[in-house]
Amino acid sequence: MKEYISYFRSEIDSMQGYVPGEQPKGGKIIKLNTNESPYAPSPAVRQALQDFDYEKLRLYPDPVFTELKEEIASQNGLSPENVIAGNGSDDILTITARCFTSKDKPLASFDPSYSLYPTLAGLQGAPYIAVPLDKDFNIPSNVMEQVKDANCFMIARPNAPTGNLYPKKEMEKICAEFNGIVFIDEAYGDFAEDTCADLVKKYSNVIVSRTFSKSRCLAGLRFGYALAHEKIIEGMVKMKDSYNVAMLTQKLALASLRDKEYFARHIERIKENRAELTSELARLGFKTIPSQSNFLFTIPPCGGEKYFLELKKRNILIRYFPAERTKDFVRITVGSKEEHSCLLQATKEILGM
Amino acid sequence: MKEYISYFRSEIDSMQGYVPGEQPKGGKIIKLNTNESPYAPSPAVRQALQDFDYEKLRLYPDPVFTELKEEIASQNGLSPENVIAGNGSDDILTITARCFTSKDKPLASFDPSYSLYPTLAGLQGAPYIAVPLDKDFNIPSNVMEQVKDANCFMIARPNAPTGNLYPKKEMEKICAEFNGIVFIDEAYGDFAEDTCADLVKKYSNVIVSRTFSKSRCLAGLRFGYALAHEKIIEGMVKMKDSYNVAMLTQKLALASLRDKEYFARHIERIKENRAELTSELARLGFKTIPSQSNFLFTIPPCGGEKYFLELKKRNILIRYFPAERTKDFVRITVGSKEEHSCLLQATKEILGM
Repeated sequence: MKEYISYFRSEIDSMQGYVPGEQPKGGKIIKLNTNESPYAPSPAVRQALQDFDYEKLRLYPDPVFTELKEEIASQNGLSPENVIAGNGSDDILTITARCFTSKDKPLASFDPSYSLYPTLAGLQGAPYIAVPLDKDFNIPSNVMEQVKDANCFMIARPNAPTGNLYPKKEMEKICAEFNGIVFIDEAYGDFAEDTCADLVKKYSNVIVSRTFSKSRCLAGLRFGYALAHEKIIEGMVKMKDSYNVAMLTQKLALASLRDKEYFARHIERIKENRAELTSELARLGFKTIPSQSNFLFTIPPCGGEKYFLELKKRNILIRYFPAERTKDFVRITVGSKEEHSCLLQATKEILGM
Repeated sequence: MKEYISYFRSEIDSMQGYVPGEQPKGGKIIKLNTNESPYAPSPAVRQALQDFDYEKLRLYPDPVFTELKEEIASQNGLSPENVIAGNGSDDILTITARCFTSKDKPLASFDPSYSLYPTLAGLQGAPYIAVPLDKDFNIPSNVMEQVKDANCFMIARPNAPTGNLYPKKEMEKICAEFNGIVFIDEAYGDFAEDTCADLVKKYSNVIVSRTFSKSRCLAGLRFGYALAHEKIIEGMVKMKDSYNVAMLTQKLALASLRDKEYFARHIERIKENRAELTSELARLGFKTIPSQSNFLFTIPPCGGEKYFLELKKRNILIRYFPAERTKDFVRITVGSKEEHSCLLQATKEILGM
């Protein structure tokens, strides 16, 4: 064997790469760590799967997902030219980082927020600007000053892992004043009380993205989309892989989109469970940031790390972020009522109650 | 609406983007333009689809496709650490371009070859070095001199659109002497008389990729993989999206891989059809480059462009590349016997025979 020499771009050799939450294989595990839904996808998805003729797989999928674009555009009051779809919203995020960031075009995001954003900057070799949120995890008053050198500003709204929703007025102010692309990541937007999708009609520098991994119970499918000015979409389409959304993904995503009733019912169910879990945990002494998402960011009375590790021993997975700003908290995905009762029982045990 | 200003990297604004072959929707069309298989995927794929529990889609897929890596490694006499999978081999190509090319790390490929390679360099903002093939579309003798400044050399073997197979000895010489990554794209390798997969064991700078879009009749699925030294795979995994291969894709790809008998039979069938079509076209005056792939690169007696356009009028799609080196040729995907007889009938009509 010829001796290994690295031909990687130096940024890649020196970086860590993004570490996703654990995906355990089998075993009796309660999985409240990656914000999946505890419920099955729409039965329309099952039907579409059953109806699918497997022989069609010999052909390439529609490279521009025509039917999906039309449905998404119509549900958002936009044109198909304002829509791009991806292999999960990760794909959309990667395309965005590649289009709008580089050595001389920095990427900005809040801190704490989705830890993929700085990773994307690193992979792209772009400088990264971290904008610390204020003590209540809200937008700091001098935000525009802090991001003035960035070309792309990625904002998760609701924020992850904190779960809060920045006021829409402040979002609009950023869109109006920022000299670059404002990427509003609405991965958890369906669980929130409002959306920024309409800002796409008003501001030509705004991209709003959505995923089917959370509110549509389809994390395994890998489907996400983004809405933006047609010129932005046109450029992003150049960047995407030609056939980035698989044929089955297109069919099943469309079936999910068209079942509006199941979707609405699912959102209500998660919101109900979220409210219940929030108050049950409050009774046990947890301090929870009011959540607009499908997870709770909460301070356990016994300390974040201890609670996380004790639950893990009991086969309950949640998420712990050891950084300074987040180390007292844990992030718990809103699950089913059954999962919550196991979690609460384990919690009482841990707290010695 | 705020006036549109481009925040794209300047390379993106000025480039065209890759144009894939036409994917017509419906209609009675004979589609011999994008090298799909005329046959259905393995029945094991249908079975895997039927057996799939749609409720599992609520969860993320295995981010590192453990079962697939094991099966692929075992079929290639390698370890799982030598395998990465992608959302089609396009995903693998994009990851490779991002890892190993940049403003100061040029990408090289032969010309003519797969036109995606220069597009990938463009999207990455990397200089592109085109190495003209010799008059018989073989590797020129001064190749090493021509690629000396490149950091990554992408070689389709068999080549597309020409269909020929460079001698393996010459490939090995490039692997041994090139100071950078040699990416051997075996998209059509299953139809050829040998493979370069074993070079991965000998050279730590070699990546060999495969796709399920051609020889496994699964273009709609989007699955491809690459084999390389474990350090290369490790770096490429940092670059890939966390969950780049969807859950259904993983299940169905695995089912296809395990049905070795159907696969072998399918390859034989395509080779048989390829030989038949080659000799039938020869009888009509076509000059065809001996093909080691699932398509023919051939000179129609009436001229390439005319033949392409006349077939299109008759609802038969093939591919025409108007560049200087390729303008006399057309590329015809090997289809079923029925498709060939329609093609031959139309051809006689066009040639006035």
